[in-house]
Amino acid sequence: MRKINIGIIGLGTIGEGLFRIINSQKSSIRKKFNIEINIIKVCDLDYKLAKKLKIEKKLFTNNYNQIVEDPKIDCVVELIGGTTIAKTIADKTLKFNKHFVTANKALIAMHGNTLSRVATKKNLHLMYEASVGGGIPLLNSIKESIIINEIKSFHGILNGTCNYILSLMAEGKEFNSALSEAQKLGFAEADPTLDINGYDTAHKVCVMAQECFGYSPNIKKIHIEGIEKINKIDLDVAKELNCKIKLIGKGKIKGKDLSLSVNPMLLKKDNPLFNVENEFNAVLIDSKNLGPIMKYGYGAGMLPTASAVITDLIRLNTDISSKAMQISKKYNLLNINDSKSRFYIRFFVVNKSGYLAKITSKFAKYKINIEKIIQNPHIANLKKVPVVITTKKSKFSELDKLLSEVHKSGLTSKESIMIPFEE
Amino acid sequence: MRKINIGIIGLGTIGEGLFRIINSQKSSIRKKFNIEINIIKVCDLDYKLAKKLKIEKKLFTNNYNQIVEDPKIDCVVELIGGTTIAKTIADKTLKFNKHFVTANKALIAMHGNTLSRVATKKNLHLMYEASVGGGIPLLNSIKESIIINEIKSFHGILNGTCNYILSLMAEGKEFNSALSEAQKLGFAEADPTLDINGYDTAHKVCVMAQECFGYSPNIKKIHIEGIEKINKIDLDVAKELNCKIKLIGKGKIKGKDLSLSVNPMLLKKDNPLFNVENEFNAVLIDSKNLGPIMKYGYGAGMLPTASAVITDLIRLNTDISSKAMQISKKYNLLNINDSKSRFYIRFFVVNKSGYLAKITSKFAKYKINIEKIIQNPHIANLKKVPVVITTKKSKFSELDKLLSEVHKSGLTSKESIMIPFEE
Repeated sequence: MRKINIGIIGLGTIGEGLFRIINSQKSSIRKKFNIEINIIKVCDLDYKLAKKLKIEKKLFTNNYNQIVEDPKIDCVVELIGGTTIAKTIADKTLKFNKHFVTANKALIAMHGNTLSRVATKKNLHLMYEASVGGGIPLLNSIKESIIINEIKSFHGILNGTCNYILSLMAEGKEFNSALSEAQKLGFAEADPTLDINGYDTAHKVCVMAQECFGYSPNIKKIHIEGIEKINKIDLDVAKELNCKIKLIGKGKIKGKDLSLSVNPMLLKKDNPLFNVENEFNAVLIDSKNLGPIMKYGYGAGMLPTASAVITDLIRLNTDISSKAMQISKKYNLLNINDSKSRFYIRFFVVNKSGYLAKITSKFAKYKINIEKIIQNPHIANLKKVPVVITTKKSKFSELDKLLSEVHKSGLTSKESIMIPFEE
Repeated sequence: MRKINIGIIGLGTIGEGLFRIINSQKSSIRKKFNIEINIIKVCDLDYKLAKKLKIEKKLFTNNYNQIVEDPKIDCVVELIGGTTIAKTIADKTLKFNKHFVTANKALIAMHGNTLSRVATKKNLHLMYEASVGGGIPLLNSIKESIIINEIKSFHGILNGTCNYILSLMAEGKEFNSALSEAQKLGFAEADPTLDINGYDTAHKVCVMAQECFGYSPNIKKIHIEGIEKINKIDLDVAKELNCKIKLIGKGKIKGKDLSLSVNPMLLKKDNPLFNVENEFNAVLIDSKNLGPIMKYGYGAGMLPTASAVITDLIRLNTDISSKAMQISKKYNLLNINDSKSRFYIRFFVVNKSGYLAKITSKFAKYKINIEKIIQNPHIANLKKVPVVITTKKSKFSELDKLLSEVHKSGLTSKESIMIPFEE
C-alpha cells in the first residue's frame, strides 16, 4: 500500500470535485489501486469555499507556500488556472521535490516543455490528464499506448461551450441566446471570451501537439479563429449542404511539415466528429498502425475533470521513465496562408442589382473556382442579403485577399466569413 | 532499461502484425518506453508462416512447450485463439512463472477469473487488451482510469463483421452479398459463424462485465442473438423510423441487478453509436462521475490488434498490484424475459385478407400496446408481405409468446423478428 499526501491549491469547480471524490471514494480507490490518497492541506484565497466543503480550519491555508514547502506533502495539485501564479507554484513545487498535477491547459501549453525537463531531471511526475478533454481518458492513453504508433493527425472538438452554442444555433437559436443558455446551464463561464475566441482550444492544441508529435509550438504562430463571426444562417446553409459547423482544433503531419490550427470547419456526415453535439468533446486521432481512433465524452464539468485528476494521482504509483513529455522532434510549422481547402464563404450583400456578377468577377480574378452559389430567396427582401459561395480547393491566402477586396468594394457588409471544409 | 524476452505462440494475422511492429519499431519503443522487447522464439504448426516472415529456423518451434518452459523467456504471447490448447498454454505459462499476454477473448471470457487469481498469487501479469475492441485503447483504460468511477453500463458495437454487413445492408445489399463482400475485404472469416451468431460479441461482453462490474458471468446465462434473421427490409424500415440497426453487446447495472445481452437493437440518431459504420467498433461506457464516454476505432485487423498486444508488453514494466482482474461483486443476473423495451416486430405475412385484424387481436390479447403499423404498399403484391409493428414498452417474454402464437396460427412465415429499441 502506497500513501500519497497531497495539497490542493484552488477550490473552484474542479477542486471541489476532487475533494468530494477523494472523500467519498477513498476506500474504493485504496482497494482498487493499492493507493491511499490523503489531503494534507488545501489553499484558496479565503476560507469561504473551504467552509462550504466543511474543510477543517487546520487543513486550510490562504498561502500556497505552506503547501509547496510542506515536507509532509508528496504532490501538489494546482487548480487555479492561468500562467502567472500557477507557473510560480509549478516551479516551486518541483524545486521542493514534489510531484506536480494540474488541470491547467494554458500552463502546460506555454511551459509544459520546460517544466517537464525539470521534473524528469529530478525524477518527479508532471501530470495533466485533466487539461485536455476533461474526463475523457486521453493524454495518458496517448502517452502509454497510442504513441507506440506513428501519430499522423488529431482533430478535436475541444471546447464544450463553443460546441454547445453551435449545437443550439443549428437548432435555430441566435448566437447570443445560445450563449446565455450555455451560461445558465453552467457550460459557459461568466466571461466566455477565451472559449468563444478559440484560445482555450488553442491551448489544448498546443498540449496535444506536445503529446502526439513531441513538438512544443509557439501559440502565436498558430492560426486561431473562434466562433464569434458565425451566424445562424451559416448553420442553416450548412444543413442544406449536409454538413455541420464545428470548432475544430487540429494538428497534422506530412513529412517534416506540421500544421496546427483552430477554426470553425464544415464537417460531412461521414466524419466521426459529425455527431458530437452539445457540451460533449471528442478527439479523433489517426495513426499508422491503429487507423482512426475517437474518444468522446464530457470535456469539462466538476466530476469528470476531477476524476481525470485522480487518474493522475493514481499513476504517481507507476514508473516515471516513460511518462515524461518527450519534446524532440523538429517540424516545419506551416502557415495557414499556404493551406488549401474547399471553402464555404458567406457574404452579407448590400442589396444592389448586379452584385453577384461583381462578386463572381473577383473570384475569376483570383482564379478561384466556384462550386455552388446559394441564395435564400425568402430572405432576399432584407437590406443585407446572405449569399453563400462554396469553392473548389483553393489557397487560404488567395481567398483571404479576395474577401478583403470584396469588403473594400462596398458590396458587402463587414461580417463575411470563410470556413474550410474538413475532408 | 528493462529487457523483456517474449515467445509468440501463433503466427496468424495478429502474430504476423506483432512480429512486424516489434521489428520495425524496436528502437522507437526502446526510446519512448525504456523497454526492449526481444522475440526469443516463435511457435506455429509448421514453418510455412515463419518462413514467409523470414524468421530464422533457430527461432522457430512447432512445440509450444519449448516456449512456455524456456527459462530465457519472461512472457508468453498466445495468439492461437480457442479455449482448449490456449487454456493449457495459459496454465503452463503461469506454472513456469511467466507473464501471459493474449488477444483471446474466448479464453478470457471463460477462464479469465481463474487465470487471474493464479497470476495475481504468483505476482505475474495476465494481460488481454487486444481481446476486446482490437486496437482501441479500452480495457487498460477501464482498469486504470474509468473504474475509479462507478460504471453503470456499457453498450458496444464489438464485432466488425456484423457491423460491416449491417452497414452494407442499410445501403441496399442483401445479407449474403454483404457477407461475401466482407469476406472479400478480409473483414469476415471464411467461417463467420461465431461473428454472425453473436458469440464473438458475447465473449467480449463477458470480458467487459469482468472489467466494468467485477462480475464473471456464465456465458450460457446471457441472451445471445446474432444478425442472421435480419432482412434488408428491416434496415429499410429502420431508416423510415430514423433509426439504425446495430448488433449491441450490453451490460447494465441497477442496484444489485445486472443485465447482460447480445442482440440487434434499433438506435436513434442521438445515440453516439448511431454513426459507427462499416468495420468500426465502438464502446459507450456510462459511469457515475464521468458520464458517457465513447471509444471508437478499428476493432480488428493485423496492425491495430498487434498494437494492442504491444501496449500490454510495455505495461509489463509497471506495478502489477492494480492491474489484476478484480472479480468480487455478486450481482443478480437478470433474465432477458423480464426486461422491458419498446419493440420493432416484423412479420412476413402470407398474403390473406384480414390478416392485420387477426395479428392485432393477438396484441390485444397479450395487452401489448401498438405504437405504429408499417406496411409497404409497393411490395404488397409479394406472396409474403412484410408488416412491421412497433410497440410501446412491453415485456420481452410476453412478446416472445405473442410471436410464437402468431407463427402457429399460420398467418406468417417463420422469419419474424423482434428487435428492441435502445433508448
